[in-house]
Amino acid sequence: MGLERDHDGTIAIVGATGAVGREALLILRERGVHASRVRAMASARSAGGHLEYGEHRLPVEDSDAASFERCGLVLLCADAATSRRLGPRAVQAGAVVVDNSSAYRMDSAVALVVPEINPAALAQIGRSTDRTPRLIANPNCSTVILLVAIEPIRREFGVRAIDVATYQAVSGAGAAGIDELLGQTRDALDGKEPTPRVFAEPCAFNLFSHDSAVDADGVNGEERKMIDESRKILAQPGLRLTPTCVRVPVLRAHTQAITLTLDVPATEQQLRSAYAKHADRAGVNLIDDRAANRFPTPRKATGIDRVLVGRLRPDPAEQSDAQRDPARAHRRWCLLASGDQLRKGAALNAIQIGDVLGLIPSEPAMLIA
Amino acid sequence: MGLERDHDGTIAIVGATGAVGREALLILRERGVHASRVRAMASARSAGGHLEYGEHRLPVEDSDAASFERCGLVLLCADAATSRRLGPRAVQAGAVVVDNSSAYRMDSAVALVVPEINPAALAQIGRSTDRTPRLIANPNCSTVILLVAIEPIRREFGVRAIDVATYQAVSGAGAAGIDELLGQTRDALDGKEPTPRVFAEPCAFNLFSHDSAVDADGVNGEERKMIDESRKILAQPGLRLTPTCVRVPVLRAHTQAITLTLDVPATEQQLRSAYAKHADRAGVNLIDDRAANRFPTPRKATGIDRVLVGRLRPDPAEQSDAQRDPARAHRRWCLLASGDQLRKGAALNAIQIGDVLGLIPSEPAMLIA
Repeated sequence: MGLERDHDGTIAIVGATGAVGREALLILRERGVHASRVRAMASARSAGGHLEYGEHRLPVEDSDAASFERCGLVLLCADAATSRRLGPRAVQAGAVVVDNSSAYRMDSAVALVVPEINPAALAQIGRSTDRTPRLIANPNCSTVILLVAIEPIRREFGVRAIDVATYQAVSGAGAAGIDELLGQTRDALDGKEPTPRVFAEPCAFNLFSHDSAVDADGVNGEERKMIDESRKILAQPGLRLTPTCVRVPVLRAHTQAITLTLDVPATEQQLRSAYAKHADRAGVNLIDDRAANRFPTPRKATGIDRVLVGRLRPDPAEQSDAQRDPARAHRRWCLLASGDQLRKGAALNAIQIGDVLGLIPSEPAMLIA
Repeated sequence: MGLERDHDGTIAIVGATGAVGREALLILRERGVHASRVRAMASARSAGGHLEYGEHRLPVEDSDAASFERCGLVLLCADAATSRRLGPRAVQAGAVVVDNSSAYRMDSAVALVVPEINPAALAQIGRSTDRTPRLIANPNCSTVILLVAIEPIRREFGVRAIDVATYQAVSGAGAAGIDELLGQTRDALDGKEPTPRVFAEPCAFNLFSHDSAVDADGVNGEERKMIDESRKILAQPGLRLTPTCVRVPVLRAHTQAITLTLDVPATEQQLRSAYAKHADRAGVNLIDDRAANRFPTPRKATGIDRVLVGRLRPDPAEQSDAQRDPARAHRRWCLLASGDQLRKGAALNAIQIGDVLGLIPSEPAMLIA
């Protein structure tokens, strides 16, 4: 897919000083995008300084004052209010916008995309005379990690129900969440009482139900996003998703305990073959060493592009000794997944969308080495 | 229930220097049991020292050399091998033994008891001429916390299936687990690489699939215990239990994300009434403030007797906007529970068993104040 070139290939990162924005800069740099093609923007409060970009230093522009003319791609890595304010302006200026916030995800006119899963949703981008499709929504981090983890299975056998409990890192609340965990942990080791600021509950050596608002049905915002966004991305409005979202004292990378109900019963061998077949395309690595008790952890998932999957096993609920037969097909399967929330859960997915649209200029890495 | 008195009311704690043993001493002291009635025992390696017991100091006896004559109750708080070696000897000496290890839990001749749930299983203890029933098994901590959390619901509406993901504290691996988390966390804050000893995976700012052996079905030891023990305690061999057990960087108290499938559909009001009715008897507290986002956490559960329950909500999987009706009965319900793994999950449950059998002498607290 390509867009008509009414731009010079510049990529603007709005919210560049935040956790997701910094990760986006890191990934662009890894991909060999030259500093002259990258613009860092942030709120007036953070503007005026510089950000390291390899051997270059990018000036941080005030995003509210900046022009998006000649930008090919704008990555919105700030909050929903900023996206609502700047998204339409960047589209108006001719850029394709990938929005990391929740502002437009459930807008029926906006594509919500995980490139490994529903790239076809990008087909209309830039071809329409209506400029709305030039804005694409990046899903919530927990949604991305869940759907990528199960994609090889879903593609081969279909999934009708998902039970998932999350173990979410504090980085989901940005750099401030990371600082809060580190600071409170130091205090706890020194015997001091915690003074929560970012999270309502103490986070050091503790965990708590996700810090998003709980609605009248008892479902919190993070859980509702997982339900609504998964149904939209998979185009399965009847998908049964039962999430419990919990914040844990991990700096980065989310983990999920997942139980799937398949459309078509499958054997363990069939599921492992599905992972072998689709792992590269789906961006998944299987780490499943039962003998050594080695499975995905957030530590292993930190800083890498792939989502890690392991603990693949049939639901033991219906098993009795007589029924244990490794060649038996089951409809219900359990697994454990870990994925970097700042990377595949946010910045990487957004850049991959730009990739599919031909908007990430890739000079040889030599040029900036 | 009472036992014939062929003892002087002495309570012996085997493994008294370990995390569970120390908690047992703390609880006995809180209950006003005089130091003269308590004997602390440990392996030869730990024997010879003393343990604080209020203003008293208990000598630590070598449990392999000690006699259990005149002991009314022996609490085995060490490993399964120690229980197999000392359990029969203590029973032979005339004591009632409550075993915290996994050694006898699934023995069909041994009662596996949570006093709030199946106290009737204790009816035969001490009445039989056969001395085997004098040994009672204390369930695994995750099993106790799960079953206590759901008991008010189970009692009123029945439970046929349980999906549960655990967030287990390092204290499940004893004092060494706690030391490992504290030490690795200090190292991590100083930028040092972790050197795992107790757990195979680093535990600071990380989490991992439970450190028990994984069987050929892909189920780990902790998960198998939850399945087998829950079926035995509830006398429901067909109970469908789907657990994923995960260790998190929390010092103490386990948390569980639970989804229940009831025998009989119930409304939210009915479930809340069930908790109101049975909370005291079941040892549960409901903490469920949606507006303030206040729910159970391991920090809140630490050091208290009750299991905390909250996030009570119908499974949103089948909900569409049209179906949202708070008065509607649902068969599938979600909740979040936290319980102190060393207390109700281990030492407290064992002492409560002794209580039911009339083996915890309770002098007025004045005497030892």
